[in-house]
Amino acid sequence: MTAEPERRRGRRPGGADTRAALLTAARAVFTESGYDGATVRAIARRAGVDPAMVNHWFGGKEALFAEAVLHLPFNPKALIAEILKGDREVLGERIIRTFLTNWDAQDGGVFAAMIRSVSAHEQVANALREFFVHQVFGQIVSAMHDDGSALLRANLVASQMIGLGMVRYVARFDPASTADVETLVAAIGPTIQRYLTGPIG
Amino acid sequence: MTAEPERRRGRRPGGADTRAALLTAARAVFTESGYDGATVRAIARRAGVDPAMVNHWFGGKEALFAEAVLHLPFNPKALIAEILKGDREVLGERIIRTFLTNWDAQDGGVFAAMIRSVSAHEQVANALREFFVHQVFGQIVSAMHDDGSALLRANLVASQMIGLGMVRYVARFDPASTADVETLVAAIGPTIQRYLTGPIG
Repeated sequence: MTAEPERRRGRRPGGADTRAALLTAARAVFTESGYDGATVRAIARRAGVDPAMVNHWFGGKEALFAEAVLHLPFNPKALIAEILKGDREVLGERIIRTFLTNWDAQDGGVFAAMIRSVSAHEQVANALREFFVHQVFGQIVSAMHDDGSALLRANLVASQMIGLGMVRYVARFDPASTADVETLVAAIGPTIQRYLTGPIG
Repeated sequence: MTAEPERRRGRRPGGADTRAALLTAARAVFTESGYDGATVRAIARRAGVDPAMVNHWFGGKEALFAEAVLHLPFNPKALIAEILKGDREVLGERIIRTFLTNWDAQDGGVFAAMIRSVSAHEQVANALREFFVHQVFGQIVSAMHDDGSALLRANLVASQMIGLGMVRYVARFDPASTADVETLVAAIGPTIQRYLTGPIG
């Protein structure tokens, strides 16, 4: 792969200051109101910019939350679409591979920062919960189940992904912190696959 | 079950003050030296008491660590012996049931406190890692494998247990935080079982 030579964003009304102001405002509003309670309108008002700037700079509320609060280095909506595109039989492996590759690229610092925020601030925990369960894993699972098990399945997937992040990046267990991605994909992929598509009761 | 009418500890040299002094000293020494580096002798010296008091009050270094640093409300060594006693085919279910029952009894506060310590203090993370991997899950797994997979298996078990604690007690996902213990035993037991005894590569 070669690096993307140029990022095309079209015109940039408001400039980079607008983007920074939106990130700061988003952190405050998400913390005060939780993910579901925070509106794009309230965030834009706090930043003193037009609400259309949220879509312009971030593509939507999910991506703004992901960057402002979770410090995720990727757009979760795009990631989910990408994950759901491939073979459903190895979805579990693909999820592990995608998240580890993304987190590894930042040496796990982003994951560790997220956990510190969650542990220290009840409000961030609320926002994270809504985001992970309803937006990220919830979207993946509800694409596959309508028997009322979708939320529990999303919780189970989140539990294993968060626990993996904890031992790899925060507590830095050995060999979880040094194992190559494919070793963990082989070991944990079937767990995620069963939580998504297998029997859980 | 009826409550235990009286706890017999034999004579109590030094009294409850000795016990409290040992807990305070243990927190300091484990934090400075890590689990493996901390000695019973150093902890006793810091507390200004005889090293025999550690065995007298706690039964050993593991249990002192569990209470002083992890704030676990149970003795891990006794717990492991109990877990290993039963049918190996449902070991995974038994581990989930045992930990959840113990953590639930304190409304998860103990687990949450442990995670806050780990996230905030690198040294506590080191001690926790040594303790969980080498003492708790390591002992369970090494009783069953001598093919070099024991440490990775112990890491995998720890990842799922820690992640389960995170969604149930810290981030309080729904329904993971409200589900009854047996629902989670049924859903996650097979994961732990495979990490302990199944194929992971």
